[in-house]
Amino acid sequence: MIHDTAIISPSAKIGSNVSIGPFSIVHANVIIGDGTNIGSHCEIGYPTPLADGLPLKIGADSLIRSHSVFYEGSSFGDKLVTGHRVTVREKTSAGLNFQIGTLCDIQGHCEIGNFVRFHSNVHIGQHSKVGNYVWIFPYVVLTNDPHPPSRIMMGVTIEDYVAIATMSIVLPGVVVKKGALVAAHSSVARDVDPDTVVGGAPAKYLCDTTKIKLKDGSGASAYPWRQHFHRGYPESVVTEWLAEFK
Amino acid sequence: MIHDTAIISPSAKIGSNVSIGPFSIVHANVIIGDGTNIGSHCEIGYPTPLADGLPLKIGADSLIRSHSVFYEGSSFGDKLVTGHRVTVREKTSAGLNFQIGTLCDIQGHCEIGNFVRFHSNVHIGQHSKVGNYVWIFPYVVLTNDPHPPSRIMMGVTIEDYVAIATMSIVLPGVVVKKGALVAAHSSVARDVDPDTVVGGAPAKYLCDTTKIKLKDGSGASAYPWRQHFHRGYPESVVTEWLAEFK
Amino acid sequence: MIHDTAIISPSAKIGSNVSIGPFSIVHANVIIGDGTNIGSHCEIGYPTPLADGLPLKIGADSLIRSHSVFYEGSSFGDKLVTGHRVTVREKTSAGLNFQIGTLCDIQGHCEIGNFVRFHSNVHIGQHSKVGNYVWIFPYVVLTNDPHPPSRIMMGVTIEDYVAIATMSIVLPGVVVKKGALVAAHSSVARDVDPDTVVGGAPAKYLCDTTKIKLKDGSGASAYPWRQHFHRGYPESVVTEWLAEFK
Repeated sequence: MIHDTAIISPSAKIGSNVSIGPFSIVHANVIIGDGTNIGSHCEIGYPTPLADGLPLKIGADSLIRSHSVFYEGSSFGDKLVTGHRVTVREKTSAGLNFQIGTLCDIQGHCEIGNFVRFHSNVHIGQHSKVGNYVWIFPYVVLTNDPHPPSRIMMGVTIEDYVAIATMSIVLPGVVVKKGALVAAHSSVARDVDPDTVVGGAPAKYLCDTTKIKLKDGSGASAYPWRQHFHRGYPESVVTEWLAEFK
Repeated sequence: MIHDTAIISPSAKIGSNVSIGPFSIVHANVIIGDGTNIGSHCEIGYPTPLADGLPLKIGADSLIRSHSVFYEGSSFGDKLVTGHRVTVREKTSAGLNFQIGTLCDIQGHCEIGNFVRFHSNVHIGQHSKVGNYVWIFPYVVLTNDPHPPSRIMMGVTIEDYVAIATMSIVLPGVVVKKGALVAAHSSVARDVDPDTVVGGAPAKYLCDTTKIKLKDGSGASAYPWRQHFHRGYPESVVTEWLAEFK
Repeated sequence: MIHDTAIISPSAKIGSNVSIGPFSIVHANVIIGDGTNIGSHCEIGYPTPLADGLPLKIGADSLIRSHSVFYEGSSFGDKLVTGHRVTVREKTSAGLNFQIGTLCDIQGHCEIGNFVRFHSNVHIGQHSKVGNYVWIFPYVVLTNDPHPPSRIMMGVTIEDYVAIATMSIVLPGVVVKKGALVAAHSSVARDVDPDTVVGGAPAKYLCDTTKIKLKDGSGASAYPWRQHFHRGYPESVVTEWLAEFK
């Protein structure tokens, strides 16, 4: 399961049924859960003094695709799934079944909840806080420096069930509240109210999310999306969601 | 021509005079045309059940640069050229001399014509249709989900000779018609008429493309670009273009 | 210091105390200064006829992180530092202590001064000129083609101490003058006056940079940033800056 060409530190703690692809490197200060699959050309547990000696922990039954780099000092729940060429720096902590798309860049010191999905090429600045069941789409950037360059870091907060559409940025210190939707190509400079849609640069209130209809001819509301979109979530979660909207 | 450190499946069908660089991997379900050159650290024919067993076909005389990943189940005409760290997923079909810039991410299930050029870091959502002689510039995203996240996919259509400038997005289901130009930093929410320029967020009609003059002091129109820009196209194509404008 | 699996051309000129990581490649026409550290999975000195035979020169005490690609024919002063997956093409020349973030793509034929910092995923078009002490933040693109596609290249000029915030683009031929600030998510179509803030698409004058206050409760101006932000600069430079504002 571990390819002949992979370079594995004898100090790494690797679970059972772990697979590691060709030309990948696993450093010493790493704990990998059972059943995890790491692709080719990865570097796992890249050492940095900024990790203060903390290990990299990857949960069980995870899939890390090729050319990805994970630093020491971060921690991921079970069933992490990544695309290719993902970078995650130190001191980030994520919950269950975090999905990180190809080319994503998580800069470290972030807190990320359960069942969060980042599509391709998302950039998460240091000190971002992301809740549960959040969706972030391609080329979104979460910023943190209010007057760059400076030493002041004001990470953004993205609450549960929020969706941030393609090529939007969230400015330092902003809170996007539960269930809100940020339209594509927006620049979010102020806090966003729960279950509202904002868009533009600077982003302004457009409507409540419930006003957006599903483009399937049903006439049903597209939001809250958890009413109708269940792919990839555990049955127990979906059951809870369906009960909420009965 | 095939480096000692490359890992090549004995089932891969590799043409004559194919070169494969160090630390690259070629999986089983792959057909590579004669004279093709694959750089270092690539993964070619990455297996996925989503390919339904279809092979990856790379045409003759192609050049795939380092750290690129191609999935099973896609097909490319002759003279494909890529930059570094390109990702192409399953069930995409492209014509002759497709050029894909560094860091591009083609999500699969796309149809792409002949002589298409993507500059660096272009993201092509699933179910996009791109015609012939199209240009797409850096950080452009073609989207597909009208109310993310959902199961509904409305791929965009980009017709022949269209140019989409830097950091623009095309929203789900939009058709950008023949010869149109999308200005940089635009968000295209409605269909774009042939040979017109649109810009802004949301993008609006600015002028006909023929109104834009070449900044070379000649006073000539910059569009249709095929009147004056011929680098990299076969002589037969250029002859046809010149006849069109005589 | 040079890993067993690295592939080093016997013609490469490699200084003393140079470290080269696993699965990296160093081509022939390369000069690497003393004390430089190159990570895993890199390709250094990628040959191209466009370099006209010029070597790649990397200064002393540099750090190039994993999966990076540098072409022949560019030159970097001492203490170059890169993130992961950086691409730099031919005929770019940079000064001392250039820092290039993860996923940056420098297209070649650029001139870059001393102590310049590019954050992650910055795209620098050919023929860009960047002064000293410049900051460019994630997903910024410096363009060059005024009517794409064409043969006309009008590189942009970014003067000393300029900061360009996240996801902005600078259009062809534009000059951003000394100490200016481009707000996030802007499209800069005209020259920007020294020590002014511009923002929007197209970017317009917003205020002088001195009007922006530091969000640390001090009431001090955030700009010129060299008054208060000194991390990573040599003591001699900081001393000069402090004298300027006494």
